[in-house]
Amino acid sequence: MPISGFPEWMPPQRMIEQRLLDRIRTTFELYGFAPLETRSVEPLDTLLSKGETSKEVYLLRRLQADENAKDDDSLGLHFDLTVPFARFVVENAGKLQFPFRRYQIQKVWRGERPQEGRYREFLQADIDVVARGELPFHYDTEMPLVIGDALGGLPIPRVRIQVNNRKVCEGFYRGLGLEDTAQVLRTVDKLDKIGPARVADALIETAGATRAQADACLELAAITAEDGSFADAVRKLGVTDPLLDEGLDELLRVVETAREHAPGLVVAELKIARGLDYYTGTVYETQLEGYERFGSVTSGGRYDSLASTGKETFPGVGISIGVTRILGLLFGHNALNVSRSVPTCVLVAVPAEEQRTTCDRVAAALRKRGIPTEVAPTAAKFGKQIQYADRRGIPYVWFPGEPDTVKDIRSGAQVEADAAAWQPPSGDLHPVIAG
Amino acid sequence: MPISGFPEWMPPQRMIEQRLLDRIRTTFELYGFAPLETRSVEPLDTLLSKGETSKEVYLLRRLQADENAKDDDSLGLHFDLTVPFARFVVENAGKLQFPFRRYQIQKVWRGERPQEGRYREFLQADIDVVARGELPFHYDTEMPLVIGDALGGLPIPRVRIQVNNRKVCEGFYRGLGLEDTAQVLRTVDKLDKIGPARVADALIETAGATRAQADACLELAAITAEDGSFADAVRKLGVTDPLLDEGLDELLRVVETAREHAPGLVVAELKIARGLDYYTGTVYETQLEGYERFGSVTSGGRYDSLASTGKETFPGVGISIGVTRILGLLFGHNALNVSRSVPTCVLVAVPAEEQRTTCDRVAAALRKRGIPTEVAPTAAKFGKQIQYADRRGIPYVWFPGEPDTVKDIRSGAQVEADAAAWQPPSGDLHPVIAG
Repeated sequence: MPISGFPEWMPPQRMIEQRLLDRIRTTFELYGFAPLETRSVEPLDTLLSKGETSKEVYLLRRLQADENAKDDDSLGLHFDLTVPFARFVVENAGKLQFPFRRYQIQKVWRGERPQEGRYREFLQADIDVVARGELPFHYDTEMPLVIGDALGGLPIPRVRIQVNNRKVCEGFYRGLGLEDTAQVLRTVDKLDKIGPARVADALIETAGATRAQADACLELAAITAEDGSFADAVRKLGVTDPLLDEGLDELLRVVETAREHAPGLVVAELKIARGLDYYTGTVYETQLEGYERFGSVTSGGRYDSLASTGKETFPGVGISIGVTRILGLLFGHNALNVSRSVPTCVLVAVPAEEQRTTCDRVAAALRKRGIPTEVAPTAAKFGKQIQYADRRGIPYVWFPGEPDTVKDIRSGAQVEADAAAWQPPSGDLHPVIAG
Repeated sequence: MPISGFPEWMPPQRMIEQRLLDRIRTTFELYGFAPLETRSVEPLDTLLSKGETSKEVYLLRRLQADENAKDDDSLGLHFDLTVPFARFVVENAGKLQFPFRRYQIQKVWRGERPQEGRYREFLQADIDVVARGELPFHYDTEMPLVIGDALGGLPIPRVRIQVNNRKVCEGFYRGLGLEDTAQVLRTVDKLDKIGPARVADALIETAGATRAQADACLELAAITAEDGSFADAVRKLGVTDPLLDEGLDELLRVVETAREHAPGLVVAELKIARGLDYYTGTVYETQLEGYERFGSVTSGGRYDSLASTGKETFPGVGISIGVTRILGLLFGHNALNVSRSVPTCVLVAVPAEEQRTTCDRVAAALRKRGIPTEVAPTAAKFGKQIQYADRRGIPYVWFPGEPDTVKDIRSGAQVEADAAAWQPPSGDLHPVIAG
């Protein structure tokens, strides 16, 4: 039986997922990110070091654990890839070259109550750049370009990366005279859920804001622009603060760099807050065009201290793509399909069991040239063998004979062919993914 | 800190692992196996349905589980990919086309006491063919060819697939007059561990064998051949039984098919028993040349009933490659290396921060043509930027200028180049794996 929150795709959907992952991975490598995979488990104290996510952790227990052995009791499955990466960096700092650019594509687990669009097991694809000591700001401008490139070459809806900067918000709140900027941020973060009126009330009730201060916070959050005009709009609100200026400069660099290299990809969206995450500057989210109401499909930002050893600090910036989230949305709306349910391009028909060796040789010759090939399961009537191909969407059936022939079972066209030379049209070689 | 049994590779090793997995996956798809990934967890009763492995299961528990909610209490991590696949087949029998060929490459977990060469988290790459009702025998002959192809194109030691057939053993033991054939099989399975003398003693003590019967079992187990001569050697032992004959015929077909398509790959090895697994015919193991003493790196065989619904039976045959086991062995012997620690082929040097946009444009042009490229982190002195490349093994540094030049930092050769046209030698484009 299906288990709520643990999605399981059928093979055609898994083929689509693989194509998505191939594109993501190839793009990450084109930008020089090195692959990393960390173990699935971390000690509980590592998992809890971030604090607020403790309720989401799955702990492991050996079924027949020795009552006295405590070794496994403190292990839990990781709930994201950032915490394990931070642990890995500190543990291996002496062996790594900094700035260290790594990508990591792995399952993560969260022991949440499942609800629509929430998973307990899901796949994330992360990139991060981490430095020892200082991390230049230009890496903040590079992250959205990598994500845009990775998701751009796929038959999925266009993505729009929404960027903000915590320094803008915190500087603005501080300049307004609000002290508890973290509380303001967490409250503003609820805008999409509860709407502006209730956010204003909450700011007054929980963050000590006046009505005028609350309104100013909402005005800031309403600012959005694809170019540098957002900075003028903020300055028109008449609040001044050095941190605000620093944040506006940084945000401007992200927006301008994206305009130069990928017009239309990035938008400054000053309501983006990522309230519970420990970002200290740039923050990123991503909308899938036509699926905006389902929320962000990536999350990311800059940490002044991704990790630290006490003596040393490792600042980082990164983005995580919610692969399962994207696929779940698109599969749920029947918006991604594949041209066949198997990788096979050619089925070699078997005229009689005694000829199976000949058929196997044909298959070997085709595979040698990269053509995915199966041999029919039995020497049934040809009609039945063609049906085997048809039910799986295999486009070609090969008939060994003198001479061999190959039939496109969609058109019925049948031609003489040599297994050492015949080539299918390139569009038929592999399953085709379409939106 | 490292956690015993949970291996974690550094990025260069992860690159090697990815190359191995790419080859395995491409080969599986060339043979028409469709990809499948099942969830990582199964209900405990599914995991225990096989019986003997219960002690190896990791159960999940939510850290802040509601005392009254029992939902997660019965979930455990899968310890192989066969049990989840069998469950998937039964659950989705109505949607699948049979015979169903699938591959599955995933992590599995076993809560064992860790010891040398044993992992608690490791990667398996499985292929299986499963039918509804009847599964033709020729699939048993195909399995080793796929595995040989997948592992053959890699810079790893040659593999040798050892094949036996349970029917040969059981028929022989029965023909000898031994009743408890399962107990004999489990005892003979210990040959490599405890040696023939102690196996003979154990056969006498626990399986009711006479000295002569025990000796005959050892004689059978000593038979090995790369061709059909094993059958003559068995018949010379003078034991007759219909099941023995059937087994010999089947084993002969596996050996002969392999000799035809992949000479030297397969050997009939009559001591292979896979004692605790529920195979009913063909069984497979694999040795890595030069690493024989570390045991098998694959396991597999034929199940008359991989899964069953009561009404219907699903026979299957498959092999599982122990990917982590192979890599752990080879990494442990320093027998696999990669030419650089990052995917990057070109580092674009930054003459001055004001020119970063120009540098980014060069990088974009190179990436567009599939050349993995990074831009230097800072506009440091060129010597320091070249050092950045050198430490990571990046072979080329690009200097924007009028004209642009590109330098092979291994030879020192520097030439004029155009980012829209320059191509590195194909051997430099991606990291090269070597044995």
